[in-house]
Amino acid sequence: MGSSVRSAGFTDRRRSSTLPTWKVRWLVAQTGKDDMKLGVVILAAGLGKRMRSSLPKVLHPLAGRPLLLHVLDAARGCEAAQVVVVHGHGGERVQSALQDEECAWAEQAEQRGTGHALIQAMPLMGDMDRVMVLYGDVPLISPQTLRRLIATGAETQLGLLTAEMSDPTGYGRILRDANGCVTRIVEQKDATPDEREVREINTGFLIADRARLQTWLGRLGNDNAQGEYYLTDVIEMAAWEGVTIATTQPEDLFEVAGVNDRVQLAELERFYQRRAAEDLMRSGVTLADPARFDLRGRLEAEQDVSIDVNVVIEGKVRLASGVRVGPNCLLRDCVIGPGTEIQANCVIEQAEVGADARIGPFARLRPEARLADQTHVGNFVEIKKTSVGLGSKVNHLTYLGDAEVGAGVNVGAGTITCNYDGANKFKTRIGDGAFIGSNAALVAPVTVGEGATIGAGSVIGKDAPPEQLTVARARQVTIRGWKRPIKSS
Amino acid sequence: MGSSVRSAGFTDRRRSSTLPTWKVRWLVAQTGKDDMKLGVVILAAGLGKRMRSSLPKVLHPLAGRPLLLHVLDAARGCEAAQVVVVHGHGGERVQSALQDEECAWAEQAEQRGTGHALIQAMPLMGDMDRVMVLYGDVPLISPQTLRRLIATGAETQLGLLTAEMSDPTGYGRILRDANGCVTRIVEQKDATPDEREVREINTGFLIADRARLQTWLGRLGNDNAQGEYYLTDVIEMAAWEGVTIATTQPEDLFEVAGVNDRVQLAELERFYQRRAAEDLMRSGVTLADPARFDLRGRLEAEQDVSIDVNVVIEGKVRLASGVRVGPNCLLRDCVIGPGTEIQANCVIEQAEVGADARIGPFARLRPEARLADQTHVGNFVEIKKTSVGLGSKVNHLTYLGDAEVGAGVNVGAGTITCNYDGANKFKTRIGDGAFIGSNAALVAPVTVGEGATIGAGSVIGKDAPPEQLTVARARQVTIRGWKRPIKSS
Amino acid sequence: MGSSVRSAGFTDRRRSSTLPTWKVRWLVAQTGKDDMKLGVVILAAGLGKRMRSSLPKVLHPLAGRPLLLHVLDAARGCEAAQVVVVHGHGGERVQSALQDEECAWAEQAEQRGTGHALIQAMPLMGDMDRVMVLYGDVPLISPQTLRRLIATGAETQLGLLTAEMSDPTGYGRILRDANGCVTRIVEQKDATPDEREVREINTGFLIADRARLQTWLGRLGNDNAQGEYYLTDVIEMAAWEGVTIATTQPEDLFEVAGVNDRVQLAELERFYQRRAAEDLMRSGVTLADPARFDLRGRLEAEQDVSIDVNVVIEGKVRLASGVRVGPNCLLRDCVIGPGTEIQANCVIEQAEVGADARIGPFARLRPEARLADQTHVGNFVEIKKTSVGLGSKVNHLTYLGDAEVGAGVNVGAGTITCNYDGANKFKTRIGDGAFIGSNAALVAPVTVGEGATIGAGSVIGKDAPPEQLTVARARQVTIRGWKRPIKSS
Repeated sequence: MGSSVRSAGFTDRRRSSTLPTWKVRWLVAQTGKDDMKLGVVILAAGLGKRMRSSLPKVLHPLAGRPLLLHVLDAARGCEAAQVVVVHGHGGERVQSALQDEECAWAEQAEQRGTGHALIQAMPLMGDMDRVMVLYGDVPLISPQTLRRLIATGAETQLGLLTAEMSDPTGYGRILRDANGCVTRIVEQKDATPDEREVREINTGFLIADRARLQTWLGRLGNDNAQGEYYLTDVIEMAAWEGVTIATTQPEDLFEVAGVNDRVQLAELERFYQRRAAEDLMRSGVTLADPARFDLRGRLEAEQDVSIDVNVVIEGKVRLASGVRVGPNCLLRDCVIGPGTEIQANCVIEQAEVGADARIGPFARLRPEARLADQTHVGNFVEIKKTSVGLGSKVNHLTYLGDAEVGAGVNVGAGTITCNYDGANKFKTRIGDGAFIGSNAALVAPVTVGEGATIGAGSVIGKDAPPEQLTVARARQVTIRGWKRPIKSS
Repeated sequence: MGSSVRSAGFTDRRRSSTLPTWKVRWLVAQTGKDDMKLGVVILAAGLGKRMRSSLPKVLHPLAGRPLLLHVLDAARGCEAAQVVVVHGHGGERVQSALQDEECAWAEQAEQRGTGHALIQAMPLMGDMDRVMVLYGDVPLISPQTLRRLIATGAETQLGLLTAEMSDPTGYGRILRDANGCVTRIVEQKDATPDEREVREINTGFLIADRARLQTWLGRLGNDNAQGEYYLTDVIEMAAWEGVTIATTQPEDLFEVAGVNDRVQLAELERFYQRRAAEDLMRSGVTLADPARFDLRGRLEAEQDVSIDVNVVIEGKVRLASGVRVGPNCLLRDCVIGPGTEIQANCVIEQAEVGADARIGPFARLRPEARLADQTHVGNFVEIKKTSVGLGSKVNHLTYLGDAEVGAGVNVGAGTITCNYDGANKFKTRIGDGAFIGSNAALVAPVTVGEGATIGAGSVIGKDAPPEQLTVARARQVTIRGWKRPIKSS
Repeated sequence: MGSSVRSAGFTDRRRSSTLPTWKVRWLVAQTGKDDMKLGVVILAAGLGKRMRSSLPKVLHPLAGRPLLLHVLDAARGCEAAQVVVVHGHGGERVQSALQDEECAWAEQAEQRGTGHALIQAMPLMGDMDRVMVLYGDVPLISPQTLRRLIATGAETQLGLLTAEMSDPTGYGRILRDANGCVTRIVEQKDATPDEREVREINTGFLIADRARLQTWLGRLGNDNAQGEYYLTDVIEMAAWEGVTIATTQPEDLFEVAGVNDRVQLAELERFYQRRAAEDLMRSGVTLADPARFDLRGRLEAEQDVSIDVNVVIEGKVRLASGVRVGPNCLLRDCVIGPGTEIQANCVIEQAEVGADARIGPFARLRPEARLADQTHVGNFVEIKKTSVGLGSKVNHLTYLGDAEVGAGVNVGAGTITCNYDGANKFKTRIGDGAFIGSNAALVAPVTVGEGATIGAGSVIGKDAPPEQLTVARARQVTIRGWKRPIKSS
């Protein structure tokens, strides 16, 4: 793709806009109103050799989602009438990863440049008035920037997204005439020393009149060292024909930074996370250390949620007001009620916890664990597919699986629900107010009645009646004269 | 409070002093000797809307303590004769959070500016010679800087703390005449382009002659857009009256940085932690990564303590010489003896561990766990309100609660002390040299004698005599012809 | 050691070379071919007072290895014919830490300067043609840089490693004449204002003709405030005698940064880790956060390994293709097979795991745990000196020690192998396809036959025959009329 801004990770952030701000605002405001149909093409056929991966580059995850899905989200944020993804390397895996997404596909069987890639998508753009080009490996482009690009380009037949860099080495420079009109993009290797001083560079993102673009693409040549068709040549054609080229710039350089290797991927990940952390903090979440927080999905946090260091949030997580999450916790697809405290080193996945509960440290809640208000779940406890009633306590070294535990129950240390007989899983039911002695094994299917007490160390294979003590315990005997083994040499 | 330095987090650090250093030193040296009574007023009535919190801003924790307590500590470091906290929003919660602290309270019922806030405190300052003003949301001000401010102000009737910023945008600038005397503070919005070039800004911290301050405050007006009484106006009055205004500057800009939202709170937290980490390293503690260390309280560490990544220290923790703490540990209010190793992923709270012990990984010591020298506590072990004697081992999957374990004891994997009968807690006593077989349940109150052996899987409800083998075990039988269940469809 | 570059941690990186690149390359290419014998002296006698440690400074670990071993590795990378370590403080501990390394030792009983230290080593250098001086507390010097220094020095009798610093304050400056020849090193305190502007500084690393060096050292004086013999004086002698002094520079300033306190140690540690993380990422490993990754040893990772935040790798670890490691894991000396997932919060040490296994969260694999392909090891499970066969599952709250577990086995929650009788350890054997009920205790030596089923809660002390159900279980009884205890006041 030539030397685009995508070939490096950025460290500075700058912004300028060649249209006055009021004008851009006005244009953005118009965008929704115009009846021009917008097609978006996402170039996603690149090999990504420097990733050194068997996974197509655009499927590598950033914040837990494939790069390409981030770009698709941005495209959707612009009300595109049609989105076409150009795939190539690993095309089947890419298509299969996006099978639930609404988009069309074009194949670029051979890698013959960005222009060639776009050409593959054009047949699917017949009904569109304008075409915008995005990149599957430039994941952080924002819908706001794209809407500005659309608005900027609305007045003319070609709009470009450019960027100011403090060190533009390696990128194609935007050359302008005395009136500030874009005349050409010059690549690093072809640039004169003066041209190299230019700090405005081409990001590769553009929008164009569909018909006009079609014409330009038809004229692209591949008379260059690589024998590729470069999309950037279109810009020179447009300038040559006297087309005014409108430009705008992103809010942040990270928006136009591409992923070429895993170092850059990690840089974008960290930028994404830093921004996510700041957004959460501004909305009223306390983060002990924003540099040690990872959001891979969506976090809905009510007021005064507090999250300690090194917490990872995955999927869709809801934390009600006043929830505190301790250090080193992993929360995935779960809902935590108000005032609940998740202590250090917990792993919670597809579970629901009520209000004012106390979980952990070292607790693991697995799918379909449903804990009511004021429950306590302590250390080295695993709960799966189990409901636990109001105020019940499961404090130590316990496995509850496929169980229904009532309210006010005390589950002793070392309790195990034997829910699996090697072939099938069965349910354990424990009534309100029951007391399960330590080290008990409840062999499902089994019911412990309300208010029942189970003696410590009992294996309970038959239902235990309510309000009674049930035990299964061998008689304690002392063997006199027994000698403790001694160390054999 | 107008545009004070407190409205932003800082990133650069600079310092200057308008008095020669020798003079400041001399003045500081005098400070202790003068018999001027110093009153300190801490303004803590602000709403903190941008925190988006139901907790009053000054109670948000930094390094585990409310912001306001950090300021109170700094005030105490200056030998103030009287400290008054001006409260407003959430006043009751603020007072209740500080109920153990020695300070007086003044209420600012309505938020009518910093000047108005100070006026509320003045009736309690009657006996003071001088008054210094601090801020409840500027937590990192150091006693050293305050002592310098006191010393600097000792020669005149008004002393100001100012700061040099590389980007002073938004702050009130300090204007000086040709002789370098402070003449005025000009707010950003009122500043001329030349004035905006000034990089010395007002931090809001000041010290003044009490009587003179009273007079100035009496003359404050609220003829401004917000209708508020601004403390900064006092400075102009003083200059107008020809009072020499002495100034000094903080060691570090973070000292005068205020907390207005949780992003700034996190910045100050990190600065605090970085400084705490450096202090510890210089004193002889090895930190694997100072950026992944959190101190929320006080750590006393002897020589050659080594702390791995992502460790959190809370409350009062003492680590004797040669202690090694593994990654991802949380230590709160505990004492660890020399040469002891705390392995990865431990949570230790209100516990004591002797010398040359080995704890973890995945161990949890709870309040009143007291482990003697050379003890071993292994993975998935919880110990609460229990003493463990010299050289005893509790290596796996065990819960010890309310127990007294002697020396040289081996507690087998899966051992549970059944200390709770649903209503009361009872003690388990295990004599020196006892051997508890795996998966045993010890039903308290119960005593296992010295040198006794408990058979694996036993539930021990009666005392086990010393030196004997005690078991409670069902006979093992094999049921011929039994068919294992098959998967039901 | 005077004011060498080693007295500070660096933050900028620059490089220059006074020989043209082609020349250096040519010289490097010659190096292997010349038959000059190279002796290396590592000065490691310093006290390291600012470390505040009882451990000699050069033994403090960086990335898990003593500083001195890093330097020794670099020396070995240069094909030195002889390496001499000059020890002094804590000499015995230093020698004992390096007892497996091939090197000679010279003692510097009194600390009388770098020149004096080198003099102690010279008697062991008799057979050498050239002598290169390294420093035991400058650990990150690279073999590449040393080979360049050797090559640069090959043409003359003295070669120096110098460095360009943006702020050279405190370092000895390299002074050159109009022809660019080094004439002298001037210390900070003796430098004129013009000389202080020089940004090229002395790193202390040098190479010299052995015979000539011997002569220069013989002439060193200690007529200075400290009464020490400074190696830097040799440079002035050489220049005075008209010897051409060749210089070269390191790739990165961290290469010549010394460790004087634990703050600097932590800086070098982080630099080392950042570089290690980048190397891994470029080679095809995904790191969720390169700033939260620690490598203390060697990691061999195949394609598409993915490592989440806060993982620590120690010793020699091999991760096959597609391995995913979750957050907060510690892996030491282990081998993990392709496609295996290590979930959050695992500790794995001296263990082997096969392909497509699923380990954790909260699993602990200890030495000699050997898990076959497709095994599952779940939460709060400890496995030691145990083999687990193909597809077997050990999912919850289990301790397996000294066991051989077959293929297709299901080990129920709470299972304990009682491998230790207080004196000796015994083996547990579990045949293919066996099913161990929950909370079972297997008292070794014991064998559970193929396809056998063990009832929940059983203590199995005798062999359980294949294909049969074996139980040891007390009868379950309900005690009517029993009253649950009530809270005593």
